[in-house]
Amino acid sequence: MTSSPKPNPAASGSGPSADGPLLSLRWAENKLLLLDQRLLPGEIVFLELTTPEEVWDAIHGMKVRGAPAIGIAAAYGVVLGALRYAGAPAGWLPAVNQAAAHLATSRPTAVNLFWALGRMKERAEALSAGPDADNLAALTQGLLEEAKSIHLEDEEVCRRIGESALPLLKDGMGVLTHCNAGGLATARYGTALAPIYLAHEQGMTLRVYADETRPVLQGARLTAFELQQAGVDVTLLCDNMAGMVMQKGWVEAVIVGTDRVAANGDVANKIGTYSLAVLAKAHGIPFYVASPLSTIDLDTESGKDIPIEERPDTEVTEAFGKRTAPEGIKVFNPSFDVTPNELVTAIITEKGIVRAPYRESLARLFADK
Amino acid sequence: MTSSPKPNPAASGSGPSADGPLLSLRWAENKLLLLDQRLLPGEIVFLELTTPEEVWDAIHGMKVRGAPAIGIAAAYGVVLGALRYAGAPAGWLPAVNQAAAHLATSRPTAVNLFWALGRMKERAEALSAGPDADNLAALTQGLLEEAKSIHLEDEEVCRRIGESALPLLKDGMGVLTHCNAGGLATARYGTALAPIYLAHEQGMTLRVYADETRPVLQGARLTAFELQQAGVDVTLLCDNMAGMVMQKGWVEAVIVGTDRVAANGDVANKIGTYSLAVLAKAHGIPFYVASPLSTIDLDTESGKDIPIEERPDTEVTEAFGKRTAPEGIKVFNPSFDVTPNELVTAIITEKGIVRAPYRESLARLFADK
Repeated sequence: MTSSPKPNPAASGSGPSADGPLLSLRWAENKLLLLDQRLLPGEIVFLELTTPEEVWDAIHGMKVRGAPAIGIAAAYGVVLGALRYAGAPAGWLPAVNQAAAHLATSRPTAVNLFWALGRMKERAEALSAGPDADNLAALTQGLLEEAKSIHLEDEEVCRRIGESALPLLKDGMGVLTHCNAGGLATARYGTALAPIYLAHEQGMTLRVYADETRPVLQGARLTAFELQQAGVDVTLLCDNMAGMVMQKGWVEAVIVGTDRVAANGDVANKIGTYSLAVLAKAHGIPFYVASPLSTIDLDTESGKDIPIEERPDTEVTEAFGKRTAPEGIKVFNPSFDVTPNELVTAIITEKGIVRAPYRESLARLFADK
Repeated sequence: MTSSPKPNPAASGSGPSADGPLLSLRWAENKLLLLDQRLLPGEIVFLELTTPEEVWDAIHGMKVRGAPAIGIAAAYGVVLGALRYAGAPAGWLPAVNQAAAHLATSRPTAVNLFWALGRMKERAEALSAGPDADNLAALTQGLLEEAKSIHLEDEEVCRRIGESALPLLKDGMGVLTHCNAGGLATARYGTALAPIYLAHEQGMTLRVYADETRPVLQGARLTAFELQQAGVDVTLLCDNMAGMVMQKGWVEAVIVGTDRVAANGDVANKIGTYSLAVLAKAHGIPFYVASPLSTIDLDTESGKDIPIEERPDTEVTEAFGKRTAPEGIKVFNPSFDVTPNELVTAIITEKGIVRAPYRESLARLFADK
């Protein structure tokens, strides 16, 4: 399947006011311009980040979120570390590696983070062993090119995920999604939302149901927002309404993104995904996971090996500027859950759709590479 | 099974500052003192209601919620209508019936509302055909006695529901509940929470998981609050975390209340209950519904015959005092869902535990009466 992607203005430095969709990140004048997603949908604010520490803070504080967007932000974060370095050329590689090591601690579940940082470190090592090893500007320019490649490749990957999934959709279908695996979570198009955008571009009518996704409401604030902006028919639900919507027969497919797919096809994704997968199975509804290859981690044997981050109680007790639970209450607030492979109907990648048995089908994706 | 309930201070006019648990309603000096549950847990405010219209507004606006508490409030609302009436004795019954008819429109799903209003109307009719038919004060006093009976009987019913359920619990058990079917939803003790309170009184240790229950957060604001006040070990969750908590093996029983049980055992309850029932079944966890007989409606054939109220979009889009979804977004906000009888392990009543086939077992409860 071929496609002719338009150039992404985000990686060419044309600034946040360029025409086209609202992009979550762009690089301009040696700064990372990052849409602060915590302020959406009320305010559209671009942060200007100039240090790896600011990028760390943006990732940790979920100002940027979505596995691919986190990877891209971290790659640019490494570039910012290199830009700041002004010592002897021999110290450049250690300085870059230090920035990368720091950025790696910002979100423990995000495999794309490690993948992007790994690519940046590899490139830095190659550059520092190459002909420009004594030229700081050239070294850093080489690193910037790598970050821009990661950025542009992500847009292409998302488009291909959309193309892979199109045959699963048909006109008039109801599709339920959780959290935000949309354009805002990636360079463009998104993963779970890419098929919806492509179907919409082709004139197909879909009814999309967006779980609000407590505690941080990425579904209400981001998915409902970006689909509405694009003119897609979208209905917002509380997470606990998904079962009723399925019971009514309104949903014919669930499509979600993922933060990590293990070698056996177990899927870590935003808390609530596992409940949805159980509900989908009980209603005979296919449960699809949209995942770029960069989010599939064959070194992770199964979901048991994925660390689950717990986040602050206040996300649950006072997330919206108002205390809504008693003081001192005990809270369980895991960021992710793990959906076992037997609940996953198919995994949609930029190299096509794979199905169970996943240990074999996922390994094949990488063997073909 | 016998019990010796202490007199309920709420129905004896001793005012909201009496010792003991925080009670959601009490009658004092010809006023209904009603705890405004929308302000919990931050503020403890008692409204002083003096007209049926104010009671209608409190029920419709969910200042009082929980099927039994709504029934009790409505009964006192009828008394307030009678108290206001100052015309000829012949007009008393029509005035009372008019107040009751108005109150019946405040919440369409609440069967206890109709049950309590029915009792009040029957009593009013008997009074107006009796020896005091020409004595307004005596007529209204008779009506007040009926409302107080409904109030005190509810406390007794809740305690008996707790006693019925105790054999289902054991020390150290994890119990998950949804919404608030606690003391605040009833005269005292609650329905779903009654067994937890009684177990706690007997020195049993339970771990309770309280779903926060979007959109109005009754679980966070009320259940977590009242269990914490009582010293019960309670952990607050977002609704979409229930599946993960079950997957971890932390939950050995789900107990919920209900707004209406149909003759076939289908259960209408707060939105999200159906999803929980599906999740419980998938994990082999028993799913119990605590229901007073007054909430079982044998005239409702099945769940299909229960009207499902849809509530304002703003409960979803700006419930926390801050707009959290884009302007103009389409919202689905049903107040209730229906759990089909095959997902209900048992229904716990003041006359014991009943199991499938429910059409027979529920009918038997009333035949014995």
